[in-house]
Amino acid sequence: MPLGVSFFFIFKEESILNHETIQKEIIAAVHRAKEDCPLVPSITNTVTIELVANAQLAAGGSAAMVYLPDEGEAIAAAGEAFYINMGTLMPFYAETLPRTARALQEHRRPWVLDPVGIGIGGLRKGLLQCFRALPPSVVRGNASEIIALANLWGLDSGVARDGVRGVDATDSVETARPAAEALASFIHGAVAVSGERDLVTDGTLTVRSEGGSKLFTKITGAGCSLGGVTAVYLAETSPFIAALTAVQAYNLAGTRAAREAKGPGSFTAAFLDALYAATPEKIAANPFVVL
Amino acid sequence: MPLGVSFFFIFKEESILNHETIQKEIIAAVHRAKEDCPLVPSITNTVTIELVANAQLAAGGSAAMVYLPDEGEAIAAAGEAFYINMGTLMPFYAETLPRTARALQEHRRPWVLDPVGIGIGGLRKGLLQCFRALPPSVVRGNASEIIALANLWGLDSGVARDGVRGVDATDSVETARPAAEALASFIHGAVAVSGERDLVTDGTLTVRSEGGSKLFTKITGAGCSLGGVTAVYLAETSPFIAALTAVQAYNLAGTRAAREAKGPGSFTAAFLDALYAATPEKIAANPFVVL
Amino acid sequence: MPLGVSFFFIFKEESILNHETIQKEIIAAVHRAKEDCPLVPSITNTVTIELVANAQLAAGGSAAMVYLPDEGEAIAAAGEAFYINMGTLMPFYAETLPRTARALQEHRRPWVLDPVGIGIGGLRKGLLQCFRALPPSVVRGNASEIIALANLWGLDSGVARDGVRGVDATDSVETARPAAEALASFIHGAVAVSGERDLVTDGTLTVRSEGGSKLFTKITGAGCSLGGVTAVYLAETSPFIAALTAVQAYNLAGTRAAREAKGPGSFTAAFLDALYAATPEKIAANPFVVL
Repeated sequence: MPLGVSFFFIFKEESILNHETIQKEIIAAVHRAKEDCPLVPSITNTVTIELVANAQLAAGGSAAMVYLPDEGEAIAAAGEAFYINMGTLMPFYAETLPRTARALQEHRRPWVLDPVGIGIGGLRKGLLQCFRALPPSVVRGNASEIIALANLWGLDSGVARDGVRGVDATDSVETARPAAEALASFIHGAVAVSGERDLVTDGTLTVRSEGGSKLFTKITGAGCSLGGVTAVYLAETSPFIAALTAVQAYNLAGTRAAREAKGPGSFTAAFLDALYAATPEKIAANPFVVL
Repeated sequence: MPLGVSFFFIFKEESILNHETIQKEIIAAVHRAKEDCPLVPSITNTVTIELVANAQLAAGGSAAMVYLPDEGEAIAAAGEAFYINMGTLMPFYAETLPRTARALQEHRRPWVLDPVGIGIGGLRKGLLQCFRALPPSVVRGNASEIIALANLWGLDSGVARDGVRGVDATDSVETARPAAEALASFIHGAVAVSGERDLVTDGTLTVRSEGGSKLFTKITGAGCSLGGVTAVYLAETSPFIAALTAVQAYNLAGTRAAREAKGPGSFTAAFLDALYAATPEKIAANPFVVL
Repeated sequence: MPLGVSFFFIFKEESILNHETIQKEIIAAVHRAKEDCPLVPSITNTVTIELVANAQLAAGGSAAMVYLPDEGEAIAAAGEAFYINMGTLMPFYAETLPRTARALQEHRRPWVLDPVGIGIGGLRKGLLQCFRALPPSVVRGNASEIIALANLWGLDSGVARDGVRGVDATDSVETARPAAEALASFIHGAVAVSGERDLVTDGTLTVRSEGGSKLFTKITGAGCSLGGVTAVYLAETSPFIAALTAVQAYNLAGTRAAREAKGPGSFTAAFLDALYAATPEKIAANPFVVL
């Protein structure tokens, strides 16, 4: 009954998201990901590609990575959500990424954009500009990347110049809040800003999630794999809940892993173990504040 | 003395492979790999390339990975066996893979084909079709990939349509048995089908190997690295014994690693430790059944 | 005051490097790397790229990897030192690597060259020949690679033919000493030869560093990540001290990791933990001998 479905969505949109309803939606998203094992393909950098796949598997998803234009299109249609990470671009991405983004739009597949390396090189700039017209459902980045993307897309970021340095941020998460909210509103989705305390926003509702570990900054791929796990949850729920669920899962698993780890090497293994073991209820119970 | 060598090979071919003779050949293959440290190069995907190399080293081999056409040719001649995995193809593989397969044939080097991603994209299809005339010594894949390859090559697979989903199987190992036997006969080599219980066949003799762990499905690269390790043993023994030895080593090391692991992160490290520690006798003693 | 600066450098050059002054410089370099967190980008192979990044982070640096020509140039200018590793070349490196090396020279950024795979393929040979006129500050390799590079550049290596086999050495570290000293003199920098006992030389002063573990040969990327960590220290000190500091850190951390590890899988994690925990004083105190 189409009417019923429409009514359902209207109801959902109008439901008031408070701390308790958010927790319920997080619990439902984590459950569904573990039950459904959604296929969530990626086009992602070669540095952290293995960790992205392993984190997606730990969260309950099925991972698949490709590079070629027709493979991006085919797997965009086959998957239930998608992850695009802009690190280590190769020349043929000039064709692969626009064609994949168009296929995602055509097949109405939600996707996560990770604008790693924004500010370096002409191809990355051109591709990120192109995504303005083919927008993702979620953008995940550090503070400087979120500011830089809002500026590149001509949105009001509140900060004239980002502080991207290589792939690291020099801006604080709080500084990036206006840029994150502007971006989320523009894409009608959600933005997650990673840092000591993470922000997740849909443009009007903004939440701060706590926990994690400083060891996240001492391993490569914490941010990239968070983006990949966000895409797993995006196969199951709204952009805002997907982004928040992934951030909560990371903060919970990071806190637990840091207790056992003797350093960054043992932290990575302990983190994947903790992510795999994290129950829906514990992920929802990780401390977060509606701002 | 050429006559002696011929006689030796005739004798070998006529020897009856039963449970006991198979175990003796497994023990010999593992010993030789650890002693010889054979150079076993790969062209493999970027997701699991590090695990492939580390597993090959743990089994006693020497690993080397390349991408370019002339490098594929040069290292095919220099190596003692080779591993080709079809994941994350790049455009220049259109030239690299056929030239490497031709060099392998010319220099009579045995090689393992892992048809990851079969069904996605035009380049993969074209390359896999091309390998029909330049066949590998061993094919390793999950049930759906083995069925799909048999169908692509026009062999009698017994299943009209494979159930490949991204890089995962939806068919059972038992369902893939006719396809595996048809493929093994066609290539005059062996086929290994990975799943809860693994099948290895040379087309007439089929063996089921048991053990392993469900955590193999929660990490990326278990299958790929099994293909790489199969190539290490292929430098030392027949396709059938090489494929079975690798499967037995994985089932043994997986069982042991699962006892120690707290989740998929610690499982990967424990698995490499167990693979490295596995003795020839223990690998041969892992449960398997001649069907 | 320019005169003061000149005087400082003259004084530094004339200071006598003995065991004690070397230890002081090692301590200072490790301290500075941990304080400054220098941005040290890489163009490196896809097999060990994650370990390179993780080891650089463990040593205190910030890592960033790229593939494209204009990205190589941009990040060469933005970084404080650079790491180029010749493994898994892709076709577009024909443009990326010369343009990056020129940018490094133009911006006076020191860099480390790791001639992995020397002897395999035409592109690698051409690029390594091109680096003769755009020389690195440090070359790191195994004995056979160092001999092969000295021969390729027409230097007096003392060995007519190298023993490169795939990516492994078949020559001893001692055999490579004349080649290492000739290379170091030619580049006015330093050369580190990895093996059971490592050599580091600036062409006139040669040091042997001890420790480490045989497990370094049972994991992929020990050498590559050592090159990446050398580049981190190269952002802070002279080529000779940078190369020696990295070698000392690896020998210390390798020794410690081997005590805890049950095999190559747990060794990698324990090694990163130990590298992260290594104090400047302990790194300087690892046994080394001025030859």
